[in-house]
Amino acid sequence: MINYKTVLQGSYYTAIDENQVGHQANSLVCINDEGTIARIVLAGDDDYQVIVNDAKQQGTLVSLSDDQVLLPGFIDLHVHAPQWPNSGLALDRPLYEWLEEYTFPLEAKFKEAKYAHLVYDNLVETLLANGTTTALYFGSVDNTGNLELVKSCLAHQKRGFVGKVVMDNPEQTPAYYRDESATAALNETENFIHEVATLNENQTIPVTPVITPRFLPSCTDDVLAGLGKLAAKYDLPIQSHCSESDWENGYALTTHGKRDATVLDEFGLLTDKSVMAHGTLLNGEDIQRFKDRGVGIAHCPISNVYFGNAVLPAKKLLSENVKVGMGTDISGGYDPSVYQNIRQAIMSSRLLNDGVDSEITPDLRGKHDAAITAKNAFYMATVGGAKSLNLATGQIKEGYIADLQIVHAKYPTFGQQVPEDTFEKLMYQTTVSEIDHVMTQGVFVK
Amino acid sequence: MINYKTVLQGSYYTAIDENQVGHQANSLVCINDEGTIARIVLAGDDDYQVIVNDAKQQGTLVSLSDDQVLLPGFIDLHVHAPQWPNSGLALDRPLYEWLEEYTFPLEAKFKEAKYAHLVYDNLVETLLANGTTTALYFGSVDNTGNLELVKSCLAHQKRGFVGKVVMDNPEQTPAYYRDESATAALNETENFIHEVATLNENQTIPVTPVITPRFLPSCTDDVLAGLGKLAAKYDLPIQSHCSESDWENGYALTTHGKRDATVLDEFGLLTDKSVMAHGTLLNGEDIQRFKDRGVGIAHCPISNVYFGNAVLPAKKLLSENVKVGMGTDISGGYDPSVYQNIRQAIMSSRLLNDGVDSEITPDLRGKHDAAITAKNAFYMATVGGAKSLNLATGQIKEGYIADLQIVHAKYPTFGQQVPEDTFEKLMYQTTVSEIDHVMTQGVFVK
Repeated sequence: MINYKTVLQGSYYTAIDENQVGHQANSLVCINDEGTIARIVLAGDDDYQVIVNDAKQQGTLVSLSDDQVLLPGFIDLHVHAPQWPNSGLALDRPLYEWLEEYTFPLEAKFKEAKYAHLVYDNLVETLLANGTTTALYFGSVDNTGNLELVKSCLAHQKRGFVGKVVMDNPEQTPAYYRDESATAALNETENFIHEVATLNENQTIPVTPVITPRFLPSCTDDVLAGLGKLAAKYDLPIQSHCSESDWENGYALTTHGKRDATVLDEFGLLTDKSVMAHGTLLNGEDIQRFKDRGVGIAHCPISNVYFGNAVLPAKKLLSENVKVGMGTDISGGYDPSVYQNIRQAIMSSRLLNDGVDSEITPDLRGKHDAAITAKNAFYMATVGGAKSLNLATGQIKEGYIADLQIVHAKYPTFGQQVPEDTFEKLMYQTTVSEIDHVMTQGVFVK
Repeated sequence: MINYKTVLQGSYYTAIDENQVGHQANSLVCINDEGTIARIVLAGDDDYQVIVNDAKQQGTLVSLSDDQVLLPGFIDLHVHAPQWPNSGLALDRPLYEWLEEYTFPLEAKFKEAKYAHLVYDNLVETLLANGTTTALYFGSVDNTGNLELVKSCLAHQKRGFVGKVVMDNPEQTPAYYRDESATAALNETENFIHEVATLNENQTIPVTPVITPRFLPSCTDDVLAGLGKLAAKYDLPIQSHCSESDWENGYALTTHGKRDATVLDEFGLLTDKSVMAHGTLLNGEDIQRFKDRGVGIAHCPISNVYFGNAVLPAKKLLSENVKVGMGTDISGGYDPSVYQNIRQAIMSSRLLNDGVDSEITPDLRGKHDAAITAKNAFYMATVGGAKSLNLATGQIKEGYIADLQIVHAKYPTFGQQVPEDTFEKLMYQTTVSEIDHVMTQGVFVK
């Protein structure tokens, strides 16, 4: 008799590749003490009933109801944690006003531990409740708040990647909210790395510190160079924004005479552990560079509508095997749900495909062959995110970490429904209320 | 002492015009026995406390909690009621396949009263739960199902406008799902009008029958002419689709040598009681015609992404004083929530404004001055819908019908928040779970 920690009995969906979703009805997902999927037993397998009986006897069997299904937990590749109180606010303002009047003043408040704890604990819990088991966070400039974010991730057993935000360029940052100097920024980044290591001691799911230059405009060349070195020294993930908007894209060209991606690359900031947010204005050369380096893109479809100035050509990127995952980009995006971003990714891609302006003739209006499906988007929200963070999760697969969600359909089916239909409805209609349970590394956290 | 049926005490938001939203804190919305807002008493008014005390004594005071606000109920101008079981399905199929394989077979099932009752009762309840107090429905070809829809509206006290769908053109409709002839279609339409009148007897909120040619391709000229006459004879609202897609737009030009809107107009189907769905491909001449006739447009932003081939220029239409309301277009749209359509209306308008294709230079990429705000979209969901249906509702205003919703913020504020911020967060984040109560004509129905 094999002792599993938990045996989940029910139907599941998991991405096989960017175009295919696998489905198994009434299977057994057997999770071991380490929180790994040790074995998947299908309905017809010989020892199916033996394993069910053993698990029943040991009290480790969790049977899904007929209307529940098991999915991999989602991976959110881009969250500005301190912007959580502003989600849904001021989205009709231009970027600079949004930053100067709403975003920077709020982020500056996270030097207070008490406030940071209040906000971050709610955010981490909210993301988990929405089925997001892993998140890659931008913190704030000040480490007091950042450490509270780390503690919240640890307390809730959420897989967290957290970066101390670096912004030391006095020309593009307000006096009340910036690193004092490149040296100070690098020291604080290194301190953060060590403090996270301390907090991680004896934790099941350690938090990973992330090298985080906010974006090119807010950073001096000195700090970018230093951060590239720190990333190499500690072998850490890197996150930033890249070619998010016409403005940002143009900034690099004006100040450095080079593409945004080229500058980041020259400072050692584009590696196979890098995740760059947005990328809506990346050109062919940038994309080739991302592919060569193994850089992941955080596709933030809701936020991109407000600040991206174009639609990320996700279908093209997926077909070229560029790593692409999904990001909510709180609070450039208003919704903490990856489901909602899956839907917007599909919708934005259709508008890229068909075009938007009725005064242009149909043949010239759109881009054609740009529309993605619910399956493509689900792949990004799971496998694409996992590949970007080099994690063995995002799939229901033997040997993979059991970061999972159990969801039910929002509305009645009024009759028979094939599994493909169930999958589409889940992608289109699931909200936080339909997510019954969430598990990270084999432990139920919702 | 004046006896009000209900006095709602709390904050409210209501659209003043397409650009402005009014807000009052701690006001009294006094509703009389007819379900009309008889008086609005503001916090500073002389008799405020007297009215509060009287209402308390009579047990008619309903005080909102600090985090609740009162909003007008939403008006959904376009719902295909029999497509409800398919919401969220098959959206990546081309229109023709979507109709032939998914939509027509499902709609044909509504000749069974039992099935129709099951689906429609759930739909009507779902829309009410989502804050939609009025809906304009396409039924199906068969009146058995249509009368079940009328009964569900009456049973749930939902303000319903229901049409028997007419489609008699054998070239564009399947044999198993069409009117037998133009004469049969017209007789059935007239029967439906009479049967609705019978069901309406002694009902507080009668259902309005609606003249409903499905769209130009599915109708013969004979039936269109006859429907125009019936609309005039009974002075009834009219609904159809107009210039929804390149295909539909092109159909009229090919078969009639005229614009879609011109053909409908010539058959007497464009009046100040007409609501035309989508209109994404309307040209300047069509829009002028809509304005001249007083036709309303059902803006269905989610559905338009899948089937509209372009983005409705809502800002332009609003600035030209064309009537525009919101529609969910179940199941061309996947979501029964008008809130979700408000969000997509904003997002699609931003993509129209900025453009979608990063390979086009910024100055040529978008349409510019096309982005709408949350306030514009809220106006469409309330006042725009009410104007399109010629209803004295959609605003919190003396003399208007009390179709209202009481909602609370989804997430904590983490501190002070100005009313404008609260409004934006409500528009961006409200789901069915945050809608605490819904009232139609002064009666709580949720």
